[in-house]
Amino acid sequence: MKISILDTVKYILSLPLDKVNLMQRKIVMIGCGVVGQGFLEILVDKKELLSRKYGFEPKLVGVSDMLKGSVMVPDGIDIPAFLEHVKSGKKIDEFSAPGAITGVDSIGTIQQTDADIMVEVTYTDIKTGEPATSHMREALKKGMSIATTNKGPVTLHFKELHEMAEQNNAQLKYEGVVMSGTPIFDLLDYCLAVNDVKEIKGILNGTTNFMLTKMEDENMAYDDALALAQKLGYAEADPTADVEGFDALAKVIILSNVVLGGNIGIDDAERVGISGITIEDVQKAKAEGMRYKLIGSTKLVDGKIIASVKPEKLPLSDPLAGVGGAINALTFKTDLSGDITILGSGAGKIETGFAIMIDVLNIHKEM
Amino acid sequence: MKISILDTVKYILSLPLDKVNLMQRKIVMIGCGVVGQGFLEILVDKKELLSRKYGFEPKLVGVSDMLKGSVMVPDGIDIPAFLEHVKSGKKIDEFSAPGAITGVDSIGTIQQTDADIMVEVTYTDIKTGEPATSHMREALKKGMSIATTNKGPVTLHFKELHEMAEQNNAQLKYEGVVMSGTPIFDLLDYCLAVNDVKEIKGILNGTTNFMLTKMEDENMAYDDALALAQKLGYAEADPTADVEGFDALAKVIILSNVVLGGNIGIDDAERVGISGITIEDVQKAKAEGMRYKLIGSTKLVDGKIIASVKPEKLPLSDPLAGVGGAINALTFKTDLSGDITILGSGAGKIETGFAIMIDVLNIHKEM
Repeated sequence: MKISILDTVKYILSLPLDKVNLMQRKIVMIGCGVVGQGFLEILVDKKELLSRKYGFEPKLVGVSDMLKGSVMVPDGIDIPAFLEHVKSGKKIDEFSAPGAITGVDSIGTIQQTDADIMVEVTYTDIKTGEPATSHMREALKKGMSIATTNKGPVTLHFKELHEMAEQNNAQLKYEGVVMSGTPIFDLLDYCLAVNDVKEIKGILNGTTNFMLTKMEDENMAYDDALALAQKLGYAEADPTADVEGFDALAKVIILSNVVLGGNIGIDDAERVGISGITIEDVQKAKAEGMRYKLIGSTKLVDGKIIASVKPEKLPLSDPLAGVGGAINALTFKTDLSGDITILGSGAGKIETGFAIMIDVLNIHKEM
Repeated sequence: MKISILDTVKYILSLPLDKVNLMQRKIVMIGCGVVGQGFLEILVDKKELLSRKYGFEPKLVGVSDMLKGSVMVPDGIDIPAFLEHVKSGKKIDEFSAPGAITGVDSIGTIQQTDADIMVEVTYTDIKTGEPATSHMREALKKGMSIATTNKGPVTLHFKELHEMAEQNNAQLKYEGVVMSGTPIFDLLDYCLAVNDVKEIKGILNGTTNFMLTKMEDENMAYDDALALAQKLGYAEADPTADVEGFDALAKVIILSNVVLGGNIGIDDAERVGISGITIEDVQKAKAEGMRYKLIGSTKLVDGKIIASVKPEKLPLSDPLAGVGGAINALTFKTDLSGDITILGSGAGKIETGFAIMIDVLNIHKEM
């Protein structure tokens, strides 16, 4: 059967609008660790839904990882086959596909690709923000939109990257940098729009919250709670970033700059960890009907950001006092919706992969 | 100075895109009580932001209230003047404006107006869904989009209204019907998209949660807690809807049908209130390290909805156990983001007015 142009036009006009809008989006992924693989798994699992409901057809045109190698396939990488390849421990350069180009480093990959969206999921370096910041500058220069879960660039260079994105008509999304798969920036942008956020406070580190919960509920000494957190994989061998509040601090800086419009650095906020909190402190507070939490908070006072991370004794009536275990939570104080608190897991492979997924989907919708 | 058409075109082309997209949206409001006035106050307060950030220019072309009368002004009602008029206790028919038409009932107003959006904020009748359901059918017939906080129609007729909206290419939004100004449907649609929600449970009635908190924390007897709730305005003189779980039940039905795709009615869910809970029950649970909450829950099991409202003893580690006072909370169990819990005020003039505001804004964005 021969199909005429007229027939094709008639067919297209007969389709519901969402089917006509089916759009192929080219994606390049820089970094191919746990988060990146989690994202790719979601793309595979939700392929039908993404296409049917959002007209979204992802086309992965390149992956570059500092340790595992790189591959570019202009016609698109077979994602299930690629995941299997990577999970078997093979180098990315060894992935074979028609027209595959291998051995290009991450900057070269960004420069050479014609992707619409860069997924930046390299490791986080909170002191330098590299190599992620360089990747992001390179992508934005080309007008490529970005989805990232990398705290480094957003903590250190938010203002610059945000402006660069605006100037180059590109989108910059980073839903996962504070609470992983638990929505906060999208919550503000899409669900709480027109609200004026006056203050934000929350529990931004799951490891220390887990430890404080154990110290209170099971009368566990600080060192034992830390050892248990390390055993369960919540805390690193060197727990400094968690217990001294550096991890929560980075998140407070991000919230200050992104949500409250500040421009502060990690030296502009008070930081006290939980290493000075003893089991006696915790049990004394409990006897008073209070509860210790490591609270990150930020607010605008007379146009100036006041931000801190420190242990606070909360009354049990505070929604944050009820947040136990390795859970994260944030309370936004708003002028119209009152206090809105959201709780969820602040980590996890699929959760963080989802943070990339929702950013990529929202970039697609707004393109 | 004479301005030529060429000058005008040049000027428009020189504007940033968001200024060009400034769109006037005609709104008709049916009902003019607390929620409607709260919404109009927000329109006034956020006028500049709505215009600058979202290109949204509301034009209120009619208001009809069963008790206060009605007015239609094709050129748009001066909202601050109208609010002042209504707050002074005067009839709406007495509001004077050039070209004003008064005395038309709500159905007539919907039929005669050329509004893009109907704000439906009449009183809730959970048994009949009227008069709101008739208003909504009339608006949808014309392809008019709807923002409502009225639980009646959404509890009783969701499927019909949803399909009618689709057929007539209109939008139907009802963010406030479950948690008022605390986002839940938008949270799922915009922030947690592609997640499969398997189960929802929460605290959906502030009055009973306030009472249970008082019974536990202050050792208050049931009758005293109820009297206090009535004194503070949380509970009605006839507290049946709250304490027997009918209010929470309506919300569970809505969640079952809207989020889980069910089609159940109020007789299809188990309902037990808190009137059988004594101070001894509450204190015994406390001694066991548990806490009573009136829990509304719904889940899909083998394609069938299992829904209920009943008091449950929760371990203190459950995020819902930590929700004290007149606060509402919902936990969504998702496949990608894990358990996501959101807490906020489930009532209030400005909060509920905001629920209308965000629906109207999202309708505008998606028009």
